[in-house]
Amino acid sequence: MTVLVFLDPAHDDGKVVDASQPQLMATDLGATRGDGIFESMLAVDGSPRKEQAHLSRLASSAAALDLDVPDADAWSRAIRTGLGEFAAAEPDQRNAVVKLVATRGVEGAGRATAWVQVAPVPASTLAQRKAGLKVLFLERGYDSTVAQRAPWLLMGAKTLSYAVNMAAVRHARANGADDVIFTSSDGKVLEGPTSTVLLAYDRDGQKTLLTPQLESGILAGTSQSALFAAAKEQGWELGYGPLEPHDLLDADAVWLISSIRLLVPVLVLDGQELRTSAALTAELTELVDRFV
Amino acid sequence: MTVLVFLDPAHDDGKVVDASQPQLMATDLGATRGDGIFESMLAVDGSPRKEQAHLSRLASSAAALDLDVPDADAWSRAIRTGLGEFAAAEPDQRNAVVKLVATRGVEGAGRATAWVQVAPVPASTLAQRKAGLKVLFLERGYDSTVAQRAPWLLMGAKTLSYAVNMAAVRHARANGADDVIFTSSDGKVLEGPTSTVLLAYDRDGQKTLLTPQLESGILAGTSQSALFAAAKEQGWELGYGPLEPHDLLDADAVWLISSIRLLVPVLVLDGQELRTSAALTAELTELVDRFV
Repeated sequence: MTVLVFLDPAHDDGKVVDASQPQLMATDLGATRGDGIFESMLAVDGSPRKEQAHLSRLASSAAALDLDVPDADAWSRAIRTGLGEFAAAEPDQRNAVVKLVATRGVEGAGRATAWVQVAPVPASTLAQRKAGLKVLFLERGYDSTVAQRAPWLLMGAKTLSYAVNMAAVRHARANGADDVIFTSSDGKVLEGPTSTVLLAYDRDGQKTLLTPQLESGILAGTSQSALFAAAKEQGWELGYGPLEPHDLLDADAVWLISSIRLLVPVLVLDGQELRTSAALTAELTELVDRFV
Repeated sequence: MTVLVFLDPAHDDGKVVDASQPQLMATDLGATRGDGIFESMLAVDGSPRKEQAHLSRLASSAAALDLDVPDADAWSRAIRTGLGEFAAAEPDQRNAVVKLVATRGVEGAGRATAWVQVAPVPASTLAQRKAGLKVLFLERGYDSTVAQRAPWLLMGAKTLSYAVNMAAVRHARANGADDVIFTSSDGKVLEGPTSTVLLAYDRDGQKTLLTPQLESGILAGTSQSALFAAAKEQGWELGYGPLEPHDLLDADAVWLISSIRLLVPVLVLDGQELRTSAALTAELTELVDRFV
């Protein structure tokens, strides 16, 4: 089942509402303009993972949209309320997806609508985590420098305006793939529609983990960041783009990482089989397991 | 007041619901992903204007998003139901904004959510129509050829993912302007966030009306199209871009045109006063009045 908790000044811990009933106004700017932000985090045994990283990114997204949202403590209390309700309703589910959403609210009201949704992890997500991914490169249309000169493009903010991301995944599926890695118009590797790109080299025992640089206008990956910190402690070298498609084709392994699906190997890229490494995937998955 | 009519297979003429109450599921992909489409049209004395053009564009947007939406007849019946309710509730309002919205529906349900909203024309819109506009050029980030090779970018579809459009208008307002004209990364004039760009020359009595070309990835303007047809009958020459910023600075007049705000002169562009022409504005407004 799905649990919904609305953030509400009159309810310190959030207001639990019936998720089987309509709860949003049809005039909410989240629904009519995609004008809002979100986060998705995993909860394990009732505990949200990387909560501060997600709340911090939510605050960054809010700032980019000039959106006044509830403070981190209010979100945390509502998350706990939602997880408590979910545990009571679904005692057999160890894992849950915790989604935070804030919209600009009803047109003219001048107050954000904010809620927490707790739901089971979709079976399709678990299946992809096990099976690995076929991925297509698709052009994102932007060059890798535009984010820095055009803040109104909201690059690096996790907005509700995800129609292009969803269309890109549909395009991939219609062409026999599972997911997408976006490239910039100047030929750089960017990110997946809902994930961060990682690649690794193992050269004579020196392992290096690479990801595209934030300055290219991608979203700051909370899982990528946590994994980089853990890998550094284990002696990995870290690197940040610019990366180009040939870097992925030349790597010893490529993954997409995100908060719910976690670390998933890319098996095929644009129809070409990639090198994979069960050993590197196992080693990094062990590090991921420490923060999930 | 606002009238809401949901399209519903069990109600031929649509189902009137209470717009003061929540009517959308919080899990609707329109609200969580901006995954849907919309149209806004003007109604005058209970009659929707350019209805077929709007319904046709809605169908094009639906096709771009691979979204299965109700057919044109079902929309028309719901529009009439909404306008009837609005007229009964607001007998003194001659004009109304009729908004059509279709989303991908509740996650997993596989059925679009579709509704018609009828509401008064906002006072701020009427004020801008009278006063004219200060406009900023802002970069849209895309080059003017990307739409043709990257259909997953959904350019030319009127989606609910309007966060960037809204952010651009906020950026303009924070910088002393009212609205925006987007430019492509290769320096072409595109469109406003919610309007089409028009410019005119009057050379020895031969009047020419110009607008950017559709192939640059802009939305097909229903008002621009209707005005062009009317102007052609009056002996105007018509032209379609590519246009560059200097073309607007050199023109005898520049306007933004859209279905609700209609034809509005651009007075100032990037801080520079433009030539305006009360005669040309009056002549074109008279043509606009024929289809509104």
